[in-house]
Amino acid sequence: MLPKPGEPLCIKVHADDNVAIVANAGGLPKGTVFACGLELQEHVPQGHKVALTDLQQGEAIIRYGEVIGYAVRPIGRGSWIEESLVRMPVSPALDQLPVATGVPAPLPPLEGYTFEGYRNPDGSVAVRNILGISTSVQCVAGVLDVAVRRIKAELLPKYPNVADVVALNHTYGCGVALDAPEAVIPIRTVQNLAVHPNLGGEVMVVGLGCEKLLPTRVSSTADVVSLQEKPGFGAMIEAIMAMAEERLVRLNGRQRVTCPLSDLVIGLQCGGSDAFSGVSANPAVGYAADLLVRAGATVLFSEVTEVRDAIHLLTPRAVNEEVGRALIREMKWYDEYLARGQVDRSANTTPGNKKGGLANIVEKSLGSTVKSGSSPIMGVLAPGERATQKGLLFAATPASDFVCGTLQLAAGMHLQVFTTGRGTPYGLAMAPVIKVSSRDSLKEQWEDLIDLNAGGIVTGEATIEAVGWELFRLIIDVASGRKTWAEQWGLHNALTLFNPAPVT
Amino acid sequence: MLPKPGEPLCIKVHADDNVAIVANAGGLPKGTVFACGLELQEHVPQGHKVALTDLQQGEAIIRYGEVIGYAVRPIGRGSWIEESLVRMPVSPALDQLPVATGVPAPLPPLEGYTFEGYRNPDGSVAVRNILGISTSVQCVAGVLDVAVRRIKAELLPKYPNVADVVALNHTYGCGVALDAPEAVIPIRTVQNLAVHPNLGGEVMVVGLGCEKLLPTRVSSTADVVSLQEKPGFGAMIEAIMAMAEERLVRLNGRQRVTCPLSDLVIGLQCGGSDAFSGVSANPAVGYAADLLVRAGATVLFSEVTEVRDAIHLLTPRAVNEEVGRALIREMKWYDEYLARGQVDRSANTTPGNKKGGLANIVEKSLGSTVKSGSSPIMGVLAPGERATQKGLLFAATPASDFVCGTLQLAAGMHLQVFTTGRGTPYGLAMAPVIKVSSRDSLKEQWEDLIDLNAGGIVTGEATIEAVGWELFRLIIDVASGRKTWAEQWGLHNALTLFNPAPVT
Repeated sequence: MLPKPGEPLCIKVHADDNVAIVANAGGLPKGTVFACGLELQEHVPQGHKVALTDLQQGEAIIRYGEVIGYAVRPIGRGSWIEESLVRMPVSPALDQLPVATGVPAPLPPLEGYTFEGYRNPDGSVAVRNILGISTSVQCVAGVLDVAVRRIKAELLPKYPNVADVVALNHTYGCGVALDAPEAVIPIRTVQNLAVHPNLGGEVMVVGLGCEKLLPTRVSSTADVVSLQEKPGFGAMIEAIMAMAEERLVRLNGRQRVTCPLSDLVIGLQCGGSDAFSGVSANPAVGYAADLLVRAGATVLFSEVTEVRDAIHLLTPRAVNEEVGRALIREMKWYDEYLARGQVDRSANTTPGNKKGGLANIVEKSLGSTVKSGSSPIMGVLAPGERATQKGLLFAATPASDFVCGTLQLAAGMHLQVFTTGRGTPYGLAMAPVIKVSSRDSLKEQWEDLIDLNAGGIVTGEATIEAVGWELFRLIIDVASGRKTWAEQWGLHNALTLFNPAPVT
Repeated sequence: MLPKPGEPLCIKVHADDNVAIVANAGGLPKGTVFACGLELQEHVPQGHKVALTDLQQGEAIIRYGEVIGYAVRPIGRGSWIEESLVRMPVSPALDQLPVATGVPAPLPPLEGYTFEGYRNPDGSVAVRNILGISTSVQCVAGVLDVAVRRIKAELLPKYPNVADVVALNHTYGCGVALDAPEAVIPIRTVQNLAVHPNLGGEVMVVGLGCEKLLPTRVSSTADVVSLQEKPGFGAMIEAIMAMAEERLVRLNGRQRVTCPLSDLVIGLQCGGSDAFSGVSANPAVGYAADLLVRAGATVLFSEVTEVRDAIHLLTPRAVNEEVGRALIREMKWYDEYLARGQVDRSANTTPGNKKGGLANIVEKSLGSTVKSGSSPIMGVLAPGERATQKGLLFAATPASDFVCGTLQLAAGMHLQVFTTGRGTPYGLAMAPVIKVSSRDSLKEQWEDLIDLNAGGIVTGEATIEAVGWELFRLIIDVASGRKTWAEQWGLHNALTLFNPAPVT
């Protein structure tokens, strides 16, 4: 690799591939000749595929060593394989998957790495010292927002060791079918968010008084401010502020202490992906994921619709039959959920994905699951469940950035690594988010939003290993208190619950 | 009526009723004897039903002149009809309803009432002068929130005629099945919110650049800030602020002018209902609704699950066969939607409703639909559609306060009247909300949240007519600029889209 600037470059990921993607910003014109002798028959945009051989009509198009589609007409060597030329394959059948047939050997332990975190009363750790105020129902959000503004202005300055005060507002709790079978998902999500480790175990709940989701169901032990019991608005604000201040005093007394990496739960996600995501950012994240697993941490990968078409590559990595079956169970549930809405997994890809060179959800999935690295899959969490195991876990979530982020928070995620190709200014209030770009031009454009650039892998100026180690060290720094760009600017996307049950 | 303080009082709504509800705060003890001679056989809580006659097992329990259930065992005269003694009837069958068979004669026009509003370029009016910033996708919310905080702090003080700057954040736009049949609902909601009349036609959209819901689909004519085109966070904030300021200048130049009431669209909703809601607050609202219709305004009533069991009383009022069929279509859609989630309309009632004396959704619905008054139903809006007619319209929405509020805003509602028995501190950012209490004790407790108390109707100290007129005049005052309590405190519940289609 290591091409000179401007030298034409195309990237082939796997020895079996019959396509490569054009790496150069702006794409490359007709007539471009690569070092390998390949000549472009037409302009090919950046991130888009070029045929490395003549393809017959119906012939398999191979990337990542996997079939990403079939040619709808003959495609000559050097031609642009535009999205409309790719017929999408069917998803792998769920009843014929190999399960736990290729469990990777455990990677050698990685010792000697620690971070500075806050130790919580229950033994878990926090990477940020945040006061979270839980809610049982959306009715209280208006009052709570006013109270939080006042807490930040009047109380927080007195407690400088506390990083932030966050209202855990959501749209659930009443006007919903609480007894529907699938209501278990939003309910356990709200319950698990309340005890998120970055909130230090200082749970408090603001409730209304007549809602379906009782505050005691959000937390059976927490103190509750019940608005209907208060004589008016002023008294509501006073009660919330008083209960908050008790907790601020305790949180403020905490100091960071040295903790093993095995205390960490790291979530992985991608958003605004392009064809480089699977070449640069996601493989580097996969490398870092393996390092984290070797150091004893818990690593979550997610996004069912971006896993579905690569599931045949994942079920063999399930550590045992039970975990493999659980993976299949989550795929099956989602297939049925989408079918109820009269769509399928092809509803996932966005105009931006396609503009970025991803022909379909199969190609996107193959690039997305690379984030999971190469270790055995130790467990599966249904949406909203909390992680209790170490190692690599599949946390089943929709791929929607905000729903996935919220469900990974419910799983106990301390910190999220978020890869992006097209670019998104994503951030969460309850956990730091490290944003990793898939290409140099995004980092150059968004210098003050992208925390780490994996684009050097595309041009050959960096290796997957080097960027993987860089990310691993950045995770340790951020867990120890270093601020991400999203934290610096205060970019907080709202919690977004996954409620597949009806609203009433 | 007009009992002395402390004198026992029970309220029978309709001549055919065989139950009444206890009016006195705290309920009444066993042995209480009413003026009519009825003696309580046990303690009956406030708002709960007492049997006026001996009821046989299986006998119909009648309130509002309608069957609200059947006695599960014999119930003696003077006994408390606790919720568990009431077997719920089935909903009225949708294929046997009388349609347009009892269209009320048009009420006499009411002339001589006007309000002071802002005239919009398209001829519609605004009751508040608000800058709204629309969004195509949740990805931009973090950045937009920062921008709006800066606009409020740095720009808004320079434009004192502008009341507020509101980010129209939502959880739609990407990570959703945009081509699912039911995606039409959230899409048209986002489109109609952008052109809400209280935003003065000054539409602008903040988009990301790779999302599924293109900013041009939110508004085909509006200016767009596309974050992916900007060189970093600072430039994003700058671009949003500059585009906002152009609009602030124009909005600031507007003055209130005298407008006819026929320019107004008023939404009706209830939340946290009790057994008094259908006796005091909702009938007063129904009276005011009739006054508004007589003055030529548009009035929206909503909440499908609170209409479903009273639908046989509404379809006769449909102005014609087509409107009647549309009412039935919306009921049928919702029946099927709930069935898909394995629930039915009984998922609606809350613990607070029941504590407040409402046995089931049938009793709740009969009290809820009273808000619609007595005029002909002139039209039906599917969820998220915008009102284009005058008179009383049924805007089909879930009963969830926030989803209903958002959909009524999409319908073009200038101002909402919200009745409550248990009490909720509800508020919207894009339209003032007048909160009406169903009982004196709530107004006494929440002096600084309830705008109008209808409790006097319960005790006989006020009449439905008098409170209805008071509400009508308050609507005119608030439309002309008088602040509601929720506005005074800045209580803003978030927009909550109704998306029955899958997330991906």
